[in-house]
Amino acid sequence: MYRTHDCGALRIENVNQNVTLAGWVQKNRNKGFIVWVDLRDRYGITQLVFDEERTPKVVFEKAQQLGREFVIQIHGTVIERESKNPNMNTGAVEVLVNELNILNPAKTPPFTIEDQTDGGEELRMQYRYLDIRRNPVKQNLLFRSKVSMAVRNYLTDAGFIDVETPYLIKSTPEGARDFVVPSRMNEGQFYALPQSPQTFKQLLMVGGLDKYFQIVKCFRDEDLRADRQPEFTQIDCEMTFVEQEDILTQFEGLTRHLLKEINGIEVGDFPRMSYDEAMKTYGNDKPDIRFGMTFTELNDSAQGKGFGVFDNQELVVGIAVPGAASYSRKEIDALIDWVKRPQIGAKGLVYVKCNADGTFKSSVDKFFGPDDLKVWAEKAGAQAGDLLLILSGEAHSTRTQLSALRMELAERMDLRDPKVFAPLWITDFPLLEWDEDTQRYHAMHHPFTAPKPEDLEKLATDPAAVKANAYDLVLNGNEIGGGSIRIHDQKLQAQMFDLLGFTKEEAQAQFGFLMDAFQYGAPPHGGIAFGLDRLVAILGGEETIRDFIAFPKNNSGRDVMIDAPAYLAQEQLEELNLKTLPKKEA
Amino acid sequence: MYRTHDCGALRIENVNQNVTLAGWVQKNRNKGFIVWVDLRDRYGITQLVFDEERTPKVVFEKAQQLGREFVIQIHGTVIERESKNPNMNTGAVEVLVNELNILNPAKTPPFTIEDQTDGGEELRMQYRYLDIRRNPVKQNLLFRSKVSMAVRNYLTDAGFIDVETPYLIKSTPEGARDFVVPSRMNEGQFYALPQSPQTFKQLLMVGGLDKYFQIVKCFRDEDLRADRQPEFTQIDCEMTFVEQEDILTQFEGLTRHLLKEINGIEVGDFPRMSYDEAMKTYGNDKPDIRFGMTFTELNDSAQGKGFGVFDNQELVVGIAVPGAASYSRKEIDALIDWVKRPQIGAKGLVYVKCNADGTFKSSVDKFFGPDDLKVWAEKAGAQAGDLLLILSGEAHSTRTQLSALRMELAERMDLRDPKVFAPLWITDFPLLEWDEDTQRYHAMHHPFTAPKPEDLEKLATDPAAVKANAYDLVLNGNEIGGGSIRIHDQKLQAQMFDLLGFTKEEAQAQFGFLMDAFQYGAPPHGGIAFGLDRLVAILGGEETIRDFIAFPKNNSGRDVMIDAPAYLAQEQLEELNLKTLPKKEA
Repeated sequence: MYRTHDCGALRIENVNQNVTLAGWVQKNRNKGFIVWVDLRDRYGITQLVFDEERTPKVVFEKAQQLGREFVIQIHGTVIERESKNPNMNTGAVEVLVNELNILNPAKTPPFTIEDQTDGGEELRMQYRYLDIRRNPVKQNLLFRSKVSMAVRNYLTDAGFIDVETPYLIKSTPEGARDFVVPSRMNEGQFYALPQSPQTFKQLLMVGGLDKYFQIVKCFRDEDLRADRQPEFTQIDCEMTFVEQEDILTQFEGLTRHLLKEINGIEVGDFPRMSYDEAMKTYGNDKPDIRFGMTFTELNDSAQGKGFGVFDNQELVVGIAVPGAASYSRKEIDALIDWVKRPQIGAKGLVYVKCNADGTFKSSVDKFFGPDDLKVWAEKAGAQAGDLLLILSGEAHSTRTQLSALRMELAERMDLRDPKVFAPLWITDFPLLEWDEDTQRYHAMHHPFTAPKPEDLEKLATDPAAVKANAYDLVLNGNEIGGGSIRIHDQKLQAQMFDLLGFTKEEAQAQFGFLMDAFQYGAPPHGGIAFGLDRLVAILGGEETIRDFIAFPKNNSGRDVMIDAPAYLAQEQLEELNLKTLPKKEA
Repeated sequence: MYRTHDCGALRIENVNQNVTLAGWVQKNRNKGFIVWVDLRDRYGITQLVFDEERTPKVVFEKAQQLGREFVIQIHGTVIERESKNPNMNTGAVEVLVNELNILNPAKTPPFTIEDQTDGGEELRMQYRYLDIRRNPVKQNLLFRSKVSMAVRNYLTDAGFIDVETPYLIKSTPEGARDFVVPSRMNEGQFYALPQSPQTFKQLLMVGGLDKYFQIVKCFRDEDLRADRQPEFTQIDCEMTFVEQEDILTQFEGLTRHLLKEINGIEVGDFPRMSYDEAMKTYGNDKPDIRFGMTFTELNDSAQGKGFGVFDNQELVVGIAVPGAASYSRKEIDALIDWVKRPQIGAKGLVYVKCNADGTFKSSVDKFFGPDDLKVWAEKAGAQAGDLLLILSGEAHSTRTQLSALRMELAERMDLRDPKVFAPLWITDFPLLEWDEDTQRYHAMHHPFTAPKPEDLEKLATDPAAVKANAYDLVLNGNEIGGGSIRIHDQKLQAQMFDLLGFTKEEAQAQFGFLMDAFQYGAPPHGGIAFGLDRLVAILGGEETIRDFIAFPKNNSGRDVMIDAPAYLAQEQLEELNLKTLPKKEA
């Protein structure tokens, strides 16, 4: 027994008790005749006091040597503090120490174990075990554990069964790149790590398990963008005998439960928006609806007046930025430069100041009179004092650019309050998207997504117009979940593979087992998957996932702490019957 | 909304309600003027009735066409059954159908979807999604989900935090073979899949998380014996500031909770036995203590009487088989043949019948008189009517042989009652075992296990005599968990690697991060891991794990349903900079 209490436990009621504590030295304040040590563990900090008069001499001397992060065990008596600290749970007491064991000394850590550390990202990752001692990281991991458990409890209570699907499965060239695993026992063959348990959960529905969930690692060998991880965690769910409405209801329930349980926030019915409407109104299929600045299309009133930048474009679209008419010329120029950056790619930005006195001042005064500008302002709902910002060009890319500008402005204006939660369902996604590079259709969700029944006929004649029974759950401008009603008919699934450019043989080789399964009594089914890493980060009020993952990888997919991946021993390669080829020249 | 009720829901109280059900056709009994259909889903079976008089003609005709495993939806009225079935939850009612939708027809399944199926193992695995529809498999998966959740609830309530450790880690040539994953972004380098999260959970303790658990997939590329899987699930736990006693108490609590919660069985304090005692008494470090036949060593009374088979052997050891004195010569010969099989490897078997009349009859009457035999019988606690079976030879292998015989007899005599649960802690394992092949020591548990403090000095002088702070939890003759107190001292860990034959450089390259971590304030810690697959099987009253895994692999590590592993496309290999070598000749 190393301790009678943890470091967050002692209260005024414990005064006069003899206690044993163990933990890390957070701080050591040596006043010569008295030494205070802050002893830390997962649960809190307890102040220890060693004093020249009351502490045995040998103990007092040892206490003076204690460095930061030493691991110690002490015996002592709980006493009332003279000056209490109301900000600490244990702030009413301290422990007068009479015995001190150094369990393990510590070298000086390479960065401070404080909420605000002096350690940079790379150093923190290399010594992640020290980083985890810091409150913000530790609290994030505790928070994640709490969220996972809340998800499990909710789904278990709702009759979902937790089934583990396999990690060693088969590679499918469709979609993102797989991580693969050479099989020693099956020479020359490889397993793949799952990008998701999609087909397995569908087979569980064919198997009659009715409601399935799993919190499961998934793997994608992609070139890593910031805040992407090669391994990530999914809350994976599937239900049988359901329509889209049943799934939305069930998982709106889960999300509402989490917001209540974890954040103490009550949210009403989630709004719903079609994909088309989201694109038209926000230029984005995961709009942040915590603030306005919705899009207003101005083609009717802005074209045909001789302004070439507008006239021959597919779309003229603007947003009204509240209170921004006061922006200086310099500030507006900076916005123009911002949208022209290659990451955004706009050619320019038209502005209209809706002055407080009711007049207008725009960058296109040569082409448009006050009456024109007034019409625009009215259409966009711009008030006196607002700033109208307008882009034009090809519809999709212009919307994407204006969406980026809208989000940037919201960031600058602090409109993205992490304490406010605005969930939103996006529905009616297109089933397919045309890929110019490969000159063929890709599945917008995945090849197992069912078309809307009323669009079935268009599948042969006008595939691009077919909508899917697919939906995303968006929270504060982030997609936190997505799913669909699945195809459960063998012929329709075959038609879908055909549309996606699979030959019959390819479809059979890769997904024959699924199409077989559909012939033995496959029920209607559908599901959803949530990205746990992001969900947890957003519920925790942050948007970067890395500090909600215990041991994340860096942008090259490396774990810098254990230094992985690494070269294999030659015998290992030989056993696997593999040869690595010489390095390609860059 | 596909249904108002599931197929296990309707009771006498629902009579006269209009209901909608969906499910699979379990059975179709067509009497000409009336058709009964058993409709099945995860929750139960409801009897549907279609009758010539009361059912619309078109519906009645469709009902006659329904084949096994068709997926249908019906609307109808709940009516009271004339002849009730008390063995079914829904046995008091049936549904008189007025509307029938065939949601998906089904080909005749390749085996019957019944508790006792006509499908062989291979066929069941190929169509696992159909196999899962069968009650025994479905119930096992539901049972597993229930056990997992009970584990999570218990550990969460006890303050354990669920932390996900990475799956893409680094290969370590120590221990079993790793599955490896080529890294595309780090050319020529590989990740490895974890055999266990051992070092990560230790780093979480160094990181101050105090109590960790995870239900996690682990991977071992071993030649598969029966009932081993290349991927398996572990309940992985670690605690800080603990001694062995703390861990035994905590996880005895977990196991007791599961036996209570899952099996409704109350178990008292678990007995404990040292490794040495277990080997001496049961010839086995995972003894089944649900029955007796403990070992009696007979060297003193059996040697030196001129019987060469005993005289020059390290060990003469026997068991008393209750009530087996009545075995015929033929039965005893069969036992002798059984122990001589190469899998067991004994040279012979000596028997002594302790007859009901107090006389003895043995296979060694030439060498030993009734007085000798009586002494043996008394030592072994054999009663009149029992059969004494004796082996001799080198101590370890003789014990192993006699243990196998003891287990075989228990099976034949039905002494291994799956409804009785006898947990047992085995402690005081040797730290190291000498490996003749490699002529060096191997870690009996793993290289991170701490020696008993009182044996520390022997580490340099007599490593084989050092005991470890390691323990196994045994349930009904199966190891269900094992763990140890870990080394947390950098120097001791380095000494351990040295003993295990690592050079300083190898130790640094593979485990430098851990030894670094030990220098920054590593606390005393220890843990345990349970094999979930086996634990669930045993709690479920079975010993084979395969039907408690949704999608198991066969003995060649193949998933015969999806046909994995498989060959990769050439482009995939090229992207990974890999070449598979031509097949080796057998």
